[in-house]
Amino acid sequence: MQPPRTLQYVDRPGIIDLGWGHPMPSALPVDAWRASQEEALREYSWQALTYGYEAGPGPLVEWLCERLGETDPRAPAPDEVFVTAGASQGIELVSTVLTRPGDAVVVDSPTYHLALRILADRDVELIGAPADDDGIDPHATGALLRRLHRASRRVPLLYLVPTFANPTGRSLPDPRRRELVEVARDTGTTIVEDDTYRELAYDGPAPPSLWSIDPAGVVRLGSFAKSVGPGLRLGWLTATPAFVRTLTRRGFVDSGGGLNHATALAMAVMGRSGRFAGHVEAIRTRYRAQRDALVAALRTELPALVVTPPHGGWFLWLRLPDGMSAAALLAAAERHGVSFLPGNRFYAQPAGDDRLRLSYSMVEPAALAEAARRLRAAFTTPATRYR
Amino acid sequence: MQPPRTLQYVDRPGIIDLGWGHPMPSALPVDAWRASQEEALREYSWQALTYGYEAGPGPLVEWLCERLGETDPRAPAPDEVFVTAGASQGIELVSTVLTRPGDAVVVDSPTYHLALRILADRDVELIGAPADDDGIDPHATGALLRRLHRASRRVPLLYLVPTFANPTGRSLPDPRRRELVEVARDTGTTIVEDDTYRELAYDGPAPPSLWSIDPAGVVRLGSFAKSVGPGLRLGWLTATPAFVRTLTRRGFVDSGGGLNHATALAMAVMGRSGRFAGHVEAIRTRYRAQRDALVAALRTELPALVVTPPHGGWFLWLRLPDGMSAAALLAAAERHGVSFLPGNRFYAQPAGDDRLRLSYSMVEPAALAEAARRLRAAFTTPATRYR
Repeated sequence: MQPPRTLQYVDRPGIIDLGWGHPMPSALPVDAWRASQEEALREYSWQALTYGYEAGPGPLVEWLCERLGETDPRAPAPDEVFVTAGASQGIELVSTVLTRPGDAVVVDSPTYHLALRILADRDVELIGAPADDDGIDPHATGALLRRLHRASRRVPLLYLVPTFANPTGRSLPDPRRRELVEVARDTGTTIVEDDTYRELAYDGPAPPSLWSIDPAGVVRLGSFAKSVGPGLRLGWLTATPAFVRTLTRRGFVDSGGGLNHATALAMAVMGRSGRFAGHVEAIRTRYRAQRDALVAALRTELPALVVTPPHGGWFLWLRLPDGMSAAALLAAAERHGVSFLPGNRFYAQPAGDDRLRLSYSMVEPAALAEAARRLRAAFTTPATRYR
Repeated sequence: MQPPRTLQYVDRPGIIDLGWGHPMPSALPVDAWRASQEEALREYSWQALTYGYEAGPGPLVEWLCERLGETDPRAPAPDEVFVTAGASQGIELVSTVLTRPGDAVVVDSPTYHLALRILADRDVELIGAPADDDGIDPHATGALLRRLHRASRRVPLLYLVPTFANPTGRSLPDPRRRELVEVARDTGTTIVEDDTYRELAYDGPAPPSLWSIDPAGVVRLGSFAKSVGPGLRLGWLTATPAFVRTLTRRGFVDSGGGLNHATALAMAVMGRSGRFAGHVEAIRTRYRAQRDALVAALRTELPALVVTPPHGGWFLWLRLPDGMSAAALLAAAERHGVSFLPGNRFYAQPAGDDRLRLSYSMVEPAALAEAARRLRAAFTTPATRYR
């Protein structure tokens, strides 16, 4: 028998794989994290190893409130923050609290493919929201929500990644943000805003979170997976104090003394020490260079494609020429030594075979240029041309 | 506004509180954990900070298989192990997978009070199993399960802590273990065995787990909360390979790359280095001395009570004299500067007002002796005598 694996990532020799939304190994802050966890154990000693406060330890909550005051127009109060075991666990927790089996849940089109699976685990019906190249369409989404209500459906939750989105890399324009929170408020639907990529802003500040626009109607999920490291399983959310209290009263949150107490205290030290801010600045520079390399290479190799550079995050979303299939292209691409995720993975409904997601996060600039050359070769393989 | 809290524990000056099932602060392995997390980052470097294998990283799984081969008759194979974010999160996860709203779930009488809350969060009906002073009664529980089936109820799950139980400190006798797994197999009910206290065995080895007797019919939950520290939020379970695969396919497990990857790698180092075994040996000695101190003090101060010394774990379960109420005793006890949890917290049904749980885990021997003196004073307060 093979020994059990350590990592999720599976290397495929010969393939430059733009399918993985994983961090660049050399951009993970091993030294900064080592120093932070060491100092946290020195400062908090046994307090780091015992049961923590259910909503997350005060030192992390207080630093988070400061940091969010710098990266978003509205700083949360401490009682508006709940520390999670990562954004994925946050989606699991929030959707467990808000939904019942059989509910309708509206999701962006496209949206984070694994969030679709987390939500589907709740035995709800996932319904893709009307959207265009600017993102979710608030007006048409309002009509959808009202239609569902008239059909006596509960629609407790609307999920989207409005900022440097997975998979599109795009951010919802400001007027749509304001319209969307109004539409949700009018229909009594809670927006679950996945704000995982806020810190990875390459061309100026990230847009205001939906939560900052309507703190009463939005649960906003954040994460340290992209800013520090996904292996830590640490994230947070901002919501109303009443919703935070509801989460702290869940049996397993009370029984466990919060969701990742020791790691949260080490992160508080990483934040307060300035190491977090310094590291984020450094990885913005790196990931920006990777984005630039992929955008430039695609424009050189595939000049007929429209390449819209994302202003943050890890993903580039491409529309294929008319009649071309992402599934067919994927087979040809892998034969040419490059891979990606086909667009249909990111929709609740059958859609997206004319799209693909390229992740530039874990591939160096030179390899991204080579990936674009291999993609061009795949594009010109006759069998990939038509659906 | 008060700054947000760091810990779950709330100190009440003047009260020796035997209500908390928390570790002794000075028994938490701050130095051993510091060394282990430091070595893990040196050995695994960036691999500790990225997405982990969904079932938990191989190094921890392999060490766990060895350790369980030493403390239980059956060592799991690697594909029978899944790493959780603590036993509480394990109960949440397993009960989410196994149950549907409206199901009946059978629990021991008494059993871990916060597990009752975790299970109740699933919108199931909790039904206390027939039990006596030796623990759950397999024969009568079989009759209960068959009665529920005849009434067309689904009963997917039976929860208990059979070894050094919370709250009783007792272990289910071996013949009942064998009868119980047979009864559950016959009725198609999965036993969820909370095996949190296995490492805290004070008078010889712990009894065989139910999982070791019937690996096909039992999901056994373990934890590092009592052996290392609850703040780490790390545990594990053993189950069939098929059940482990089901868990790895949950959306948030896949999306997050396992449930607590970096912490799991540090624990693998703590295990392999021998620090885990050395630390467990040391805390067994300490907690054994605390148990002995409380048992001796109770026998001196309250000689009319039957005090059954637990062979492991953190809890002592007392039956009050006929007609005496734990709720009334608690009020008198707090006036005399001692506290505990009344027995009724530990039952799915109204019961247990003639019982109380004393935790000796976070109180030094001298204070345990004083606590017993204060309890005697409360016992002799006239108002506490009768319900």
